[in-house]
Amino acid sequence: MNFCSHCGSAQLAFKVPEGDNRPRYICSDCGAIHYSNPKIVTGCLPIWEGRVLLAKRAIEPRKGYWNVPSGYMENGETVEQGAAREVREETLARVENLTLHTVFSIPHISQVYIHFLAELASPDFGIGEESLEVRLFTEAETPWKEIAFTSSVFSLKHYFEDRRKGRREVHTGKMEWRS
Amino acid sequence: MNFCSHCGSAQLAFKVPEGDNRPRYICSDCGAIHYSNPKIVTGCLPIWEGRVLLAKRAIEPRKGYWNVPSGYMENGETVEQGAAREVREETLARVENLTLHTVFSIPHISQVYIHFLAELASPDFGIGEESLEVRLFTEAETPWKEIAFTSSVFSLKHYFEDRRKGRREVHTGKMEWRS
Repeated sequence: MNFCSHCGSAQLAFKVPEGDNRPRYICSDCGAIHYSNPKIVTGCLPIWEGRVLLAKRAIEPRKGYWNVPSGYMENGETVEQGAAREVREETLARVENLTLHTVFSIPHISQVYIHFLAELASPDFGIGEESLEVRLFTEAETPWKEIAFTSSVFSLKHYFEDRRKGRREVHTGKMEWRS
Repeated sequence: MNFCSHCGSAQLAFKVPEGDNRPRYICSDCGAIHYSNPKIVTGCLPIWEGRVLLAKRAIEPRKGYWNVPSGYMENGETVEQGAAREVREETLARVENLTLHTVFSIPHISQVYIHFLAELASPDFGIGEESLEVRLFTEAETPWKEIAFTSSVFSLKHYFEDRRKGRREVHTGKMEWRS
Protein backbone atom coordinates (compact mmCIF):
# COMPACT_ATOMS: atom_id res chain seq x y z
CA MET A 1 0.00 0.00 0.00
CA ASN A 2 1.61 3.22 -1.25
CA PHE A 3 -1.42 5.51 -1.58
CA CYS A 4 -4.71 6.00 0.28
CA SER A 5 -7.41 4.23 -1.74
CA HIS A 6 -9.97 6.70 -0.37
CA CYS A 7 -8.38 10.11 -1.13
CA GLY A 8 -5.24 9.25 -3.17
CA SER A 9 -2.78 10.78 -0.68
CA ALA A 10 0.73 9.34 -0.37
CA GLN A 11 0.87 10.43 3.28
CA LEU A 12 0.29 7.02 4.85
CA ALA A 13 1.49 6.21 8.34
CA PHE A 14 1.74 2.66 9.68
CA LYS A 15 0.70 3.11 13.31
CA VAL A 16 -1.75 2.06 15.97
CA PRO A 17 -5.08 3.91 15.61
CA GLU A 18 -6.62 5.43 18.73
CA GLY A 19 -8.51 2.76 20.67
CA ASP A 20 -6.83 -0.04 18.69
CA ASN A 21 -3.90 -2.24 19.71
CA ARG A 22 -2.07 -2.99 16.48
CA PRO A 23 -0.65 -0.91 13.63
CA ARG A 24 -2.67 -0.19 10.47
CA TYR A 25 -2.10 2.01 7.44
CA ILE A 26 -3.71 5.34 8.32
CA CYS A 27 -4.05 8.22 5.89
CA SER A 28 -2.60 11.38 7.41
CA ASP A 29 -4.73 13.50 5.07
CA CYS A 30 -8.26 12.03 5.23
CA GLY A 31 -7.87 9.83 8.32
CA ALA A 32 -9.01 6.62 6.61
CA ILE A 33 -7.82 3.47 8.38
CA HIS A 34 -6.95 0.62 6.01
CA TYR A 35 -7.44 -2.81 7.53
CA SER A 36 -5.98 -6.04 6.21
CA ASN A 37 -7.40 -9.36 7.38
CA PRO A 38 -6.86 -13.06 6.72
CA LYS A 39 -8.33 -14.68 3.64
CA ILE A 40 -10.37 -17.87 3.47
CA VAL A 41 -9.44 -20.59 0.99
CA THR A 42 -12.42 -22.90 0.60
CA GLY A 43 -12.73 -26.23 -1.17
CA CYS A 44 -14.01 -29.80 -1.18
CA LEU A 45 -12.79 -33.35 -1.14
CA PRO A 46 -15.25 -34.62 -3.77
CA ILE A 47 -15.85 -38.30 -3.00
CA TRP A 48 -16.87 -41.06 -5.41
CA GLU A 49 -16.91 -44.63 -4.07
CA GLY A 50 -14.31 -43.82 -1.43
CA ARG A 51 -11.97 -42.11 -3.87
CA VAL A 52 -11.14 -38.39 -3.81
CA LEU A 53 -11.12 -36.13 -6.85
CA LEU A 54 -7.93 -34.08 -7.08
CA ALA A 55 -6.79 -31.53 -9.65
CA LYS A 56 -3.25 -30.98 -10.88
CA ARG A 57 -2.54 -27.25 -10.80
CA ALA A 58 -2.03 -25.45 -14.10
CA ILE A 59 -1.07 -22.21 -12.33
CA GLU A 60 1.48 -21.02 -9.81
CA PRO A 61 2.05 -21.41 -6.95
CA ARG A 62 2.80 -25.15 -7.02
CA LYS A 63 2.05 -25.61 -10.70
CA GLY A 64 2.13 -29.30 -11.60
CA TYR A 65 1.25 -30.44 -8.08
CA TRP A 66 -2.01 -32.13 -7.09
CA ASN A 67 -4.48 -30.31 -4.91
CA VAL A 68 -7.85 -30.49 -3.24
CA PRO A 69 -10.12 -28.39 -5.52
CA SER A 70 -10.16 -25.05 -3.68
CA GLY A 71 -9.56 -21.33 -3.96
CA TYR A 72 -10.24 -17.95 -2.42
CA MET A 73 -13.74 -17.48 -1.06
CA GLU A 74 -15.48 -14.59 -2.80
CA ASN A 75 -17.70 -11.83 -1.43
CA GLY A 76 -21.42 -12.60 -1.49
CA GLU A 77 -21.24 -16.37 -1.07
CA THR A 78 -21.35 -18.84 1.81
CA VAL A 79 -18.29 -20.96 2.55
CA GLU A 80 -20.17 -23.96 1.13
CA GLN A 81 -21.15 -22.12 -2.06
CA GLY A 82 -17.54 -21.05 -2.54
CA ALA A 83 -16.31 -24.61 -2.02
CA ALA A 84 -18.78 -26.04 -4.57
CA ARG A 85 -17.92 -23.24 -7.05
CA GLU A 86 -14.20 -24.03 -6.81
CA VAL A 87 -14.86 -27.72 -7.51
CA ARG A 88 -16.93 -26.78 -10.55
CA GLU A 89 -14.28 -24.35 -11.85
CA GLU A 90 -11.32 -26.70 -11.41
CA THR A 91 -12.86 -30.10 -12.17
CA LEU A 92 -16.17 -29.31 -13.99
CA ALA A 93 -17.84 -31.58 -11.41
CA ARG A 94 -20.96 -31.00 -9.34
CA VAL A 95 -20.92 -31.80 -5.64
CA GLU A 96 -23.70 -32.17 -3.08
CA ASN A 97 -24.21 -32.92 0.61
CA LEU A 98 -21.24 -30.90 1.80
CA THR A 99 -20.15 -31.51 5.40
CA LEU A 100 -17.41 -29.57 7.16
CA HIS A 101 -14.15 -31.52 7.33
CA THR A 102 -11.19 -29.27 8.27
CA VAL A 103 -10.37 -25.74 9.39
CA PHE A 104 -6.64 -25.13 9.01
CA SER A 105 -4.85 -21.86 9.86
CA ILE A 106 -1.59 -20.72 8.29
CA PRO A 107 -0.80 -17.59 10.30
CA HIS A 108 2.42 -16.54 8.57
CA ILE A 109 0.53 -16.02 5.31
CA SER A 110 -2.75 -15.01 7.00
CA GLN A 111 -4.87 -17.72 5.41
CA VAL A 112 -7.53 -20.07 6.76
CA TYR A 113 -8.35 -23.20 4.74
CA ILE A 114 -11.88 -24.55 5.11
CA HIS A 115 -12.45 -27.92 3.43
CA PHE A 116 -15.66 -29.93 3.12
CA LEU A 117 -16.34 -33.54 2.32
CA ALA A 118 -18.79 -33.71 -0.56
CA GLU A 119 -20.42 -36.32 -2.73
CA LEU A 120 -19.89 -36.19 -6.45
CA ALA A 121 -23.36 -35.96 -7.94
CA SER A 122 -22.13 -38.30 -10.70
CA PRO A 123 -18.71 -39.54 -11.84
CA ASP A 124 -18.65 -36.84 -14.50
CA PHE A 125 -15.73 -34.46 -14.32
CA GLY A 126 -13.25 -32.79 -16.61
CA ILE A 127 -10.26 -30.48 -16.75
CA GLY A 128 -11.04 -26.92 -15.65
CA GLU A 129 -9.13 -23.88 -16.88
CA GLU A 130 -6.76 -23.82 -13.91
CA SER A 131 -6.07 -27.57 -14.03
CA LEU A 132 -3.73 -29.79 -16.06
CA GLU A 133 -5.30 -33.12 -15.07
CA VAL A 134 -8.16 -34.31 -12.87
CA ARG A 135 -8.63 -37.80 -11.44
CA LEU A 136 -9.97 -39.87 -8.57
CA PHE A 137 -7.51 -41.33 -6.07
CA THR A 138 -7.76 -44.10 -3.49
CA GLU A 139 -5.57 -43.71 -0.41
CA ALA A 140 -2.94 -46.03 -1.90
CA GLU A 141 -2.91 -44.13 -5.19
CA THR A 142 -2.63 -40.68 -3.61
CA PRO A 143 0.61 -38.97 -4.75
CA TRP A 144 1.62 -37.80 -1.26
CA LYS A 145 4.92 -36.29 -2.38
CA GLU A 146 3.21 -34.32 -5.13
CA ILE A 147 0.43 -32.71 -3.09
CA ALA A 148 0.53 -28.92 -3.52
CA PHE A 149 -0.18 -27.68 -0.01
CA THR A 150 0.11 -28.79 3.61
CA SER A 151 -3.56 -27.96 4.16
CA SER A 152 -4.50 -30.53 1.51
CA VAL A 153 -2.26 -33.22 3.02
CA PHE A 154 -3.94 -32.50 6.38
CA SER A 155 -7.43 -32.93 4.89
CA LEU A 156 -6.61 -36.02 2.83
CA LYS A 157 -4.86 -37.85 5.68
CA HIS A 158 -7.77 -37.18 8.02
CA TYR A 159 -10.31 -38.25 5.41
CA PHE A 160 -8.68 -41.61 4.76
CA GLU A 161 -7.99 -42.20 8.45
CA ASP A 162 -11.60 -41.38 9.44
CA ARG A 163 -12.81 -43.66 6.64
CA ARG A 164 -10.71 -46.58 7.88
CA LYS A 165 -12.05 -46.01 11.39
CA GLY A 166 -15.62 -45.61 10.20
CA ARG A 167 -16.09 -42.17 11.75
CA ARG A 168 -16.82 -38.59 10.70
CA GLU A 169 -15.07 -35.76 12.53
CA VAL A 170 -14.21 -32.12 11.99
CA HIS A 171 -10.49 -31.47 12.33
CA THR A 172 -8.73 -28.21 13.15
CA GLY A 173 -5.06 -27.57 12.68
CA LYS A 174 -2.37 -25.07 11.85
CA MET A 175 0.92 -24.81 10.07
CA GLU A 176 3.76 -23.26 12.02
CA TRP A 177 6.30 -21.21 10.16
CA ARG A 178 9.72 -22.79 9.86
CA SER A 179 12.69 -20.67 8.85
CA MET B 1 -12.09 2.53 -3.49
CA ASN B 2 -11.45 5.78 -5.35
CA PHE B 3 -7.71 5.56 -6.01
CA CYS B 4 -5.23 2.79 -6.77
CA SER B 5 -3.41 1.99 -3.53
CA HIS B 6 -0.37 0.88 -5.55
CA CYS B 7 0.25 3.89 -7.88
CA GLY B 8 -2.26 6.53 -6.69
CA SER B 9 -4.11 6.76 -10.02
CA ALA B 10 -7.82 7.65 -10.06
CA GLN B 11 -8.28 5.65 -13.29
CA LEU B 12 -9.95 2.61 -11.75
CA ALA B 13 -12.21 0.35 -13.76
CA PHE B 14 -14.57 -2.17 -12.19
CA LYS B 15 -14.40 -5.06 -14.64
CA VAL B 16 -13.57 -8.73 -15.05
CA PRO B 17 -9.79 -9.28 -15.31
CA GLU B 18 -8.52 -11.57 -18.08
CA GLY B 19 -8.81 -15.20 -17.00
CA ASP B 20 -11.13 -14.28 -14.11
CA ASN B 21 -14.92 -14.57 -13.93
CA ARG B 22 -16.01 -11.69 -11.72
CA PRO B 23 -15.43 -7.94 -11.66
CA ARG B 24 -12.60 -6.38 -9.60
CA TYR B 25 -11.20 -2.88 -9.30
CA ILE B 26 -8.39 -2.71 -11.86
CA CYS B 27 -6.01 0.22 -12.23
CA SER B 28 -5.96 1.41 -15.84
CA ASP B 29 -2.55 2.99 -15.27
CA CYS B 30 -0.44 0.36 -13.48
CA GLY B 31 -2.65 -2.70 -14.03
CA ALA B 32 -2.94 -3.60 -10.34
CA ILE B 33 -5.97 -5.76 -9.56
CA HIS B 34 -7.58 -5.01 -6.19
CA TYR B 35 -9.31 -8.01 -4.64
CA SER B 36 -11.84 -7.86 -1.83
CA ASN B 37 -12.67 -11.03 0.10
CA PRO B 38 -14.85 -12.08 3.03
CA LYS B 39 -13.70 -11.42 6.58
CA ILE B 40 -13.62 -13.89 9.46
CA VAL B 41 -15.17 -12.96 12.80
CA THR B 42 -13.79 -15.32 15.43
CA GLY B 43 -14.80 -15.84 19.04
CA CYS B 44 -15.56 -18.21 21.90
CA LEU B 45 -18.37 -19.32 24.10
CA PRO B 46 -16.36 -19.33 27.34
CA ILE B 47 -17.93 -21.95 29.60
CA TRP B 48 -17.90 -22.11 33.39
CA GLU B 49 -20.02 -24.80 35.06
CA GLY B 50 -22.40 -24.97 32.09
CA ARG B 51 -22.86 -21.21 31.94
CA VAL B 52 -21.66 -19.03 29.04
CA LEU B 53 -19.79 -15.77 29.43
CA LEU B 54 -21.31 -12.99 27.35
CA ALA B 55 -20.33 -9.35 26.94
CA LYS B 56 -22.67 -6.40 26.51
CA ARG B 57 -21.37 -4.30 23.63
CA ALA B 58 -20.07 -0.80 24.39
CA ILE B 59 -19.64 -0.02 20.69
CA GLU B 60 -21.75 0.07 17.55
CA PRO B 61 -23.12 -1.86 15.80
CA ARG B 62 -25.63 -3.25 18.32
CA LYS B 63 -24.33 -1.23 21.25
CA GLY B 64 -26.06 -2.33 24.46
CA TYR B 65 -26.79 -5.84 23.17
CA TRP B 66 -25.21 -9.02 24.52
CA ASN B 67 -22.77 -10.94 22.40
CA VAL B 68 -20.49 -13.94 22.24
CA PRO B 69 -16.99 -12.45 22.80
CA SER B 70 -15.70 -12.17 19.22
CA GLY B 71 -14.23 -9.86 16.62
CA TYR B 72 -12.32 -9.67 13.36
CA MET B 73 -9.53 -12.18 13.00
CA GLU B 74 -6.18 -10.43 12.51
CA ASN B 75 -3.28 -11.21 10.19
CA GLY B 76 -0.59 -13.44 11.69
CA GLU B 77 -2.78 -15.46 14.04
CA THR B 78 -4.63 -18.78 13.93
CA VAL B 79 -8.42 -18.76 14.20
CA GLU B 80 -8.07 -20.16 17.73
CA GLN B 81 -5.54 -17.51 18.77
CA GLY B 82 -7.85 -14.80 17.46
CA ALA B 83 -10.81 -16.26 19.34
CA ALA B 84 -8.88 -16.40 22.63
CA ARG B 85 -7.56 -12.85 22.08
CA GLU B 86 -11.08 -11.50 21.56
CA VAL B 87 -12.25 -13.13 24.80
CA ARG B 88 -9.33 -11.55 26.64
CA GLU B 89 -9.95 -8.12 25.13
CA GLU B 90 -13.69 -8.06 25.79
CA THR B 91 -13.98 -9.94 29.08
CA LEU B 92 -10.40 -9.95 30.52
CA ALA B 93 -10.81 -13.73 30.86
CA ARG B 94 -8.43 -16.51 29.84
CA VAL B 95 -9.79 -19.50 27.96
CA GLU B 96 -8.30 -22.92 27.22
CA ASN B 97 -9.16 -26.19 25.44
CA LEU B 98 -10.88 -24.53 22.48
CA THR B 99 -12.97 -26.83 20.28
CA LEU B 100 -14.67 -25.75 17.07
CA HIS B 101 -18.39 -25.17 17.55
CA THR B 102 -19.91 -23.23 14.62
CA VAL B 103 -19.07 -21.90 11.16
CA PHE B 104 -21.74 -19.44 10.06
CA SER B 105 -21.76 -17.54 6.75
CA ILE B 106 -23.48 -14.21 6.18
CA PRO B 107 -23.02 -13.73 2.43
CA HIS B 108 -24.73 -10.35 2.05
CA ILE B 109 -22.10 -8.74 4.28
CA SER B 110 -19.29 -11.12 3.25
CA GLN B 111 -18.54 -12.39 6.74
CA VAL B 112 -17.88 -15.84 8.17
CA TYR B 113 -18.31 -16.33 11.92
CA ILE B 114 -16.17 -19.07 13.50
CA HIS B 115 -17.01 -19.79 17.14
CA PHE B 116 -15.30 -22.16 19.56
CA LEU B 117 -16.40 -23.68 22.82
CA ALA B 118 -13.75 -22.96 25.46
CA GLU B 119 -13.21 -23.53 29.14
CA LEU B 120 -12.68 -20.53 31.36
CA ALA B 121 -9.33 -21.14 33.03
CA SER B 122 -10.89 -19.66 36.21
CA PRO B 123 -14.06 -17.73 37.00
CA ASP B 124 -12.08 -14.48 36.82
CA PHE B 125 -13.32 -11.98 34.30
CA GLY B 126 -13.95 -8.28 34.00
CA ILE B 127 -15.20 -5.55 31.72
CA GLY B 128 -13.00 -5.00 28.66
CA GLU B 129 -12.73 -1.69 26.83
CA GLU B 130 -15.38 -2.57 24.27
CA SER B 131 -17.84 -3.94 26.84
CA LEU B 132 -20.40 -2.38 29.18
CA GLU B 133 -21.05 -5.49 31.27
CA VAL B 134 -19.84 -9.10 31.37
CA ARG B 135 -21.56 -12.04 33.03
CA LEU B 136 -22.22 -15.76 32.95
CA PHE B 137 -25.60 -17.01 31.73
CA THR B 138 -27.43 -20.30 32.07
CA GLU B 139 -29.79 -21.20 29.23
CA ALA B 140 -32.79 -19.92 31.23
CA GLU B 141 -31.04 -16.64 32.03
CA THR B 142 -29.90 -15.95 28.46
CA PRO B 143 -31.43 -12.67 27.20
CA TRP B 144 -32.51 -14.07 23.83
CA LYS B 145 -34.18 -10.87 22.68
CA GLU B 146 -31.10 -8.83 23.51
CA ILE B 147 -28.48 -10.90 21.69
CA ALA B 148 -26.54 -8.72 19.27
CA PHE B 149 -26.16 -10.97 16.24
CA THR B 150 -27.86 -13.94 14.57
CA SER B 151 -24.54 -15.80 14.52
CA SER B 152 -24.43 -15.63 18.32
CA VAL B 153 -28.02 -16.87 18.69
CA PHE B 154 -27.08 -19.76 16.38
CA SER B 155 -24.05 -20.70 18.51
CA LEU B 156 -25.81 -20.30 21.87
CA LYS B 157 -28.89 -22.32 20.87
CA HIS B 158 -26.71 -25.14 19.56
CA TYR B 159 -24.51 -25.10 22.66
CA PHE B 160 -27.42 -25.42 25.09
CA GLU B 161 -29.19 -28.00 22.92
CA ASP B 162 -26.04 -30.14 22.56
CA ARG B 163 -25.51 -29.86 26.31
CA ARG B 164 -29.03 -31.09 27.06
CA LYS B 165 -28.51 -33.99 24.67
CA GLY B 166 -25.05 -34.78 26.05
CA ARG B 167 -23.30 -34.45 22.69
CA ARG B 168 -20.62 -32.35 21.00
CA GLU B 169 -21.06 -31.38 17.37
CA VAL B 170 -19.79 -28.80 14.93
CA HIS B 171 -22.61 -26.84 13.33
CA THR B 172 -22.59 -24.95 10.05
CA GLY B 173 -25.19 -22.43 9.00
CA LYS B 174 -25.92 -19.26 7.11
CA MET B 175 -28.08 -16.20 7.29
CA GLU B 176 -30.10 -15.39 4.21
CA TRP B 177 -30.67 -11.76 3.36
CA ARG B 178 -34.23 -10.59 3.83
CA SER B 179 -35.33 -7.33 2.26
